[in-house]
Amino acid sequence: RINGDRLWDSLMEMAKIGPGVAGGNNRQTLTDADAEGRALFQKWCEDAGCSMGVDTMGNMFATRPGEDPDALPVYMGSHLDTQPTGGKYDGVLGVLGALEAVRSMNDLGIKTKHPIVIANWTNEEGTRFAPAMLASGVFAGVHTQDWAYDREDAEGKKFGDELKRIGWVGDEEVGARKMHAMFELHIEQGPILEAEGKDIGVVTHGQGLSWTQVTVTGKEAHTGSTPMPMRKNAGLGMARILDLVDEIALSHAPHAVGAAGHIEVHPNSRNVIPGKAIFTVDFRHPELEVIQDMEKRLDAGAKKIASDMGLEIELEKVGGFDPVQFDEGCVSAVRDAAERLGYSHMDIISGAGHDACWINQVAPTSMIMCPCVDGLSHNEAEDISKEWATAGADVMFHAALETAEI
Amino acid sequence: RINGDRLWDSLMEMAKIGPGVAGGNNRQTLTDADAEGRALFQKWCEDAGCSMGVDTMGNMFATRPGEDPDALPVYMGSHLDTQPTGGKYDGVLGVLGALEAVRSMNDLGIKTKHPIVIANWTNEEGTRFAPAMLASGVFAGVHTQDWAYDREDAEGKKFGDELKRIGWVGDEEVGARKMHAMFELHIEQGPILEAEGKDIGVVTHGQGLSWTQVTVTGKEAHTGSTPMPMRKNAGLGMARILDLVDEIALSHAPHAVGAAGHIEVHPNSRNVIPGKAIFTVDFRHPELEVIQDMEKRLDAGAKKIASDMGLEIELEKVGGFDPVQFDEGCVSAVRDAAERLGYSHMDIISGAGHDACWINQVAPTSMIMCPCVDGLSHNEAEDISKEWATAGADVMFHAALETAEI
Ligand SMILES: NC(=O)NCCC(=O)O
Ligand SMILES: NC(=O)NCCC(=O)O
Repeated sequence: RINGDRLWDSLMEMAKIGPGVAGGNNRQTLTDADAEGRALFQKWCEDAGCSMGVDTMGNMFATRPGEDPDALPVYMGSHLDTQPTGGKYDGVLGVLGALEAVRSMNDLGIKTKHPIVIANWTNEEGTRFAPAMLASGVFAGVHTQDWAYDREDAEGKKFGDELKRIGWVGDEEVGARKMHAMFELHIEQGPILEAEGKDIGVVTHGQGLSWTQVTVTGKEAHTGSTPMPMRKNAGLGMARILDLVDEIALSHAPHAVGAAGHIEVHPNSRNVIPGKAIFTVDFRHPELEVIQDMEKRLDAGAKKIASDMGLEIELEKVGGFDPVQFDEGCVSAVRDAAERLGYSHMDIISGAGHDACWINQVAPTSMIMCPCVDGLSHNEAEDISKEWATAGADVMFHAALETAEI
Repeated sequence: RINGDRLWDSLMEMAKIGPGVAGGNNRQTLTDADAEGRALFQKWCEDAGCSMGVDTMGNMFATRPGEDPDALPVYMGSHLDTQPTGGKYDGVLGVLGALEAVRSMNDLGIKTKHPIVIANWTNEEGTRFAPAMLASGVFAGVHTQDWAYDREDAEGKKFGDELKRIGWVGDEEVGARKMHAMFELHIEQGPILEAEGKDIGVVTHGQGLSWTQVTVTGKEAHTGSTPMPMRKNAGLGMARILDLVDEIALSHAPHAVGAAGHIEVHPNSRNVIPGKAIFTVDFRHPELEVIQDMEKRLDAGAKKIASDMGLEIELEKVGGFDPVQFDEGCVSAVRDAAERLGYSHMDIISGAGHDACWINQVAPTSMIMCPCVDGLSHNEAEDISKEWATAGADVMFHAALETAEI
């Protein structure tokens, strides 16, 4: 069994870096706070006897050697970056849970045939630099590093420049590492486990995601002296498309979801009819065909709304991944560990995207989920119990040990 | 007649300060560019033999002495501040047209019984600090100076601090000046004069304005893993209210207008359901009853939308003025001047708010309008012809001379 108190203390310690405004965290990727969190994580890993490797995307890999020098490592990990108004556990639990598993191996004098690696993936959240899971995507060969380096934040700063600025460009070629398996522990971020009273979600699938950036162009003009029939109000066009997004998602109830979290209007002045509105539509569903249908209907419906209003429109896919089926062997290792340890569990589909979704393309991968209060995440009020965290880390510890061969 | 070439040259010279990104201007109030524009204006006024007075709201008053030391001055003026993506003429024409009128008086050796004052009113646009026409409002006793000083921009900077920072807090008590009359020349910012082929709009009325800031509060949550029925999407609530705003304005066609130019969602991350949306609804109409009806329907309708969606909502009136009827004597002076000078003209209602709307409460006031291309304003592409500018300034020159008694 891992040490739940020590895990919790580390979670609380990390949460001091990049505090939020309402009890959570703002430790967005490639900020100074991110750099500080990385340094603390590195120190902890080194204290646990691991050696740190960093790749050219800033992904961090702390290795605990195995008995067989030729055996591929078993990875555990997630991400330390947070949303601008994020919780203390989203991502962090998976990284520090992996660290706790290694600390417990040390305490218990456990030796494994395969080395163990604790991973921290760069820019999982995708808030500052879209898309989400950027660096695990490059690792898995989904994106090129050049393309990733060119991603810009809202101020026009580039990912590559910011990674350099915070001093975390490593020397390892990204994606060069080969894995025996990877496990990612994460809070559910949804309400199912808590509602069903289960300690552990055995993640068999991940639903697919589609991000479409919509740019509606109208004409800036005076809100007072421009007659209604002459207006080309990009903000109003956006409003109607946002309603359409909701309608499309609800038409595929109960599993589809749709919303726009990021919205900007220009020039954003109270007495100027918006000349431009830019927003990103987020659609998700466990089946690819449904996602494709939603994309198609958004494209057609939004273009119709725009043309009826005399607006111009562009739709660009800026992120996404197909639904994921995790590796059966890894899934079984998780289910068996939960069973063996006596935790209540159920199979579950991940509603969010995770680094594991990309890594699954290049290595046997699966995920362990623990409940979170009211299913709330991407909110500073995100909360979990120490017991849930402990159970999740325990299951990962055991699944990894089984896979790494004691 | 005034010198149209000189007026135009000054307009082009001023437009070099705070250039926009598309041929217009970004010389927002209390920015460094605003300070630079003020300094140039002061120099020009002093070169024209005027002495500058500045009040504690930063309003600038350049006086050309009259023959009778006891006679109250005749004011001409408007504002030098612009929208973030504004035109070169909105406001500026009224200030530099007044300067040109004084320069022409000097050229022609004209002496007036009443002194002449050229005014530049601070923060007419209201983009950086709401509400619009802030400093003329304080001058007219509509707002207190303390309240105005406390207005904050998007970065939380206060009006009072920024006025001090740019060095334009004057020593005159705001509103202490008494006026014999005030004339404001302004571009129409709407399509009527151009469509009717008229050189001059004799502004008899100004339509009323109502700004309501709406704050919709939902719950930040994950866009992927939060089931649709659990969502409290403040952005979607906003979208529906924006559609309602349009519907309300159209129900009072053809004269009512309604839109939201300023929109913000929090935390504005692609994978976070907006927990908060803040936007300002701008309603206008020439009749007070209609404005009040639109406000009432917005209040009821927006609250209904919010409660149906499980959202909280607050509506706060953050700006506005009742419909204005300008002084009959000043209106006649403008109409007579246009007639005498042989310019085609028509009576018109101002669609936008102007400093003249507030000053009308404390002094006989009226406005002169000139056409603008396609009725376009609050857009960097805002355009007028030299002939239109010349005609407008000419009419103001003559109306002021008649009122100031040669
Ligand atoms: N787990 C998580 O919140 N990842 C961010 C990517 C997503 O939006 O699903
Ligand atoms: N003239 C002008 O654009 N004034 C700004 C105030 C308003 O929105 O009407």
